[in-house]
Amino acid sequence: MDKEAFIISAFNNNFNGDDGAIINDWCFSKDLFFEDVHFKRKWLSLEQIATKAMLVNISDAIVMNARPKFALIGLSLPKNLSLDEIKSLQNALLKTAKEFKIQIIGGDTISSDKIAISITLLSKLNGRAIFRKGLKKDMFLAFTGKLGDSLKGLKSLQNGFKLHKNHRFVRPILRANFFYEASKEICVAMDISDGLNKDLARMLNLNKLNIKWLKKMSKNELISGEEYEILFAFSGKNKKRIQNLAKKHRIKINIFAKTIRGRYKFYGREHHF
Amino acid sequence: MDKEAFIISAFNNNFNGDDGAIINDWCFSKDLFFEDVHFKRKWLSLEQIATKAMLVNISDAIVMNARPKFALIGLSLPKNLSLDEIKSLQNALLKTAKEFKIQIIGGDTISSDKIAISITLLSKLNGRAIFRKGLKKDMFLAFTGKLGDSLKGLKSLQNGFKLHKNHRFVRPILRANFFYEASKEICVAMDISDGLNKDLARMLNLNKLNIKWLKKMSKNELISGEEYEILFAFSGKNKKRIQNLAKKHRIKINIFAKTIRGRYKFYGREHHF
Repeated sequence: MDKEAFIISAFNNNFNGDDGAIINDWCFSKDLFFEDVHFKRKWLSLEQIATKAMLVNISDAIVMNARPKFALIGLSLPKNLSLDEIKSLQNALLKTAKEFKIQIIGGDTISSDKIAISITLLSKLNGRAIFRKGLKKDMFLAFTGKLGDSLKGLKSLQNGFKLHKNHRFVRPILRANFFYEASKEICVAMDISDGLNKDLARMLNLNKLNIKWLKKMSKNELISGEEYEILFAFSGKNKKRIQNLAKKHRIKINIFAKTIRGRYKFYGREHHF
Repeated sequence: MDKEAFIISAFNNNFNGDDGAIINDWCFSKDLFFEDVHFKRKWLSLEQIATKAMLVNISDAIVMNARPKFALIGLSLPKNLSLDEIKSLQNALLKTAKEFKIQIIGGDTISSDKIAISITLLSKLNGRAIFRKGLKKDMFLAFTGKLGDSLKGLKSLQNGFKLHKNHRFVRPILRANFFYEASKEICVAMDISDGLNKDLARMLNLNKLNIKWLKKMSKNELISGEEYEILFAFSGKNKKRIQNLAKKHRIKINIFAKTIRGRYKFYGREHHF
């Protein structure tokens, strides 16, 4: 068992193991976004750091089928940031909050040597919660958008290049409206944060299922993390409606596999912890 | 305006400026507990770090008159921690959660170079919420327990000494039962985290009041931070009852001032950010 699984298992209870915890009709989620873990300072502007921190948290709420309403924000900021720099970071948090109709209700601020952002979202369920567990056999697995660009972007950054402000590594693309509308037909879902291969393995192992691939996928598509596209499943009878909703919302969906009995074997490397 | 006030002011709304945010009959609070900001590794064991992180968060809920029910925990842990070390940290989180009947419902774990713990508590109000605002003139100001030992402990640590596991710098003493029972008679409250002098200035400025001192206090008592004793106010007609409840719960309360019209001037140094 890797360290991360070990840590999560210690806190195991009915609420855990998903992107958020559901209590009554609310979803509570929390993510950390730390300098030198999730980003390097030279890769992203302060505005981009703050915006991405918000978006990756909002992504967790969306895939649980919840609309973020309130946020608590923990900020660790280096002492040498100027007031203008702090202001641009704050403005980005406020702008993204406003865009998603989220009210920032509190938090904590400290000074440290690195930027660390911890966001807790309180999100109202849009109908029923969608979990990672509950997948059945003979269901279609799909993901939104396209995969692979995040890793390419990361490699460019590591090679000293800059990314365009709309590159998905800088600013993840969320699929809120499609997902909320399609949620009645969606059985399980999670966002792709650690690469399709790894996230798929998690979902399949949790549900004790295997898949038959319907599509050949490149290694790049399989291992690219921080995509924040949505991995989701639905039954055959809802395929047409899901496809129509994707068309309506002008997004691409890729139906790449069908679930079968058996055990999925993950061949990649555990790199999260 | 110092940087911290600047940061908080940007997020200003009806919810902010207290130890927690109140929505319906719930209180949501979040605190960061970071290595080299709040503690040095050599000062505290991993178990003590985890316990203190929980307790300082629980303290925020108590002074809002809320009982913590659920926690989301964000953990940043150095890669070189052994499984045994991680286990002792987890056990401390779980033990403290159990002691206060808190269920850990989720969170996030990453590896970084330092220990950073971010805790969000979801707490149920025990009747009405108690805020920092709402103080009137001619009220008594009091604090629980005694002040000063936390700073003495910090100085000992800085001089290379160790502290006893029950020293309040290692393990803050919370006054939950007294506070919950006395809450009906308490007008405003906050925990003393930055020193009575500074926290008092915050409370008085927020309420545009000054005080008449009833007691002489030492500099050490005034500036010692991380005490987590409770600063609170009540009107004269409730003095006897507050004193009786303190007796019942076997805690000391110190009625040190009475509020008067005017403006309180804070002479200390802003050191929080």
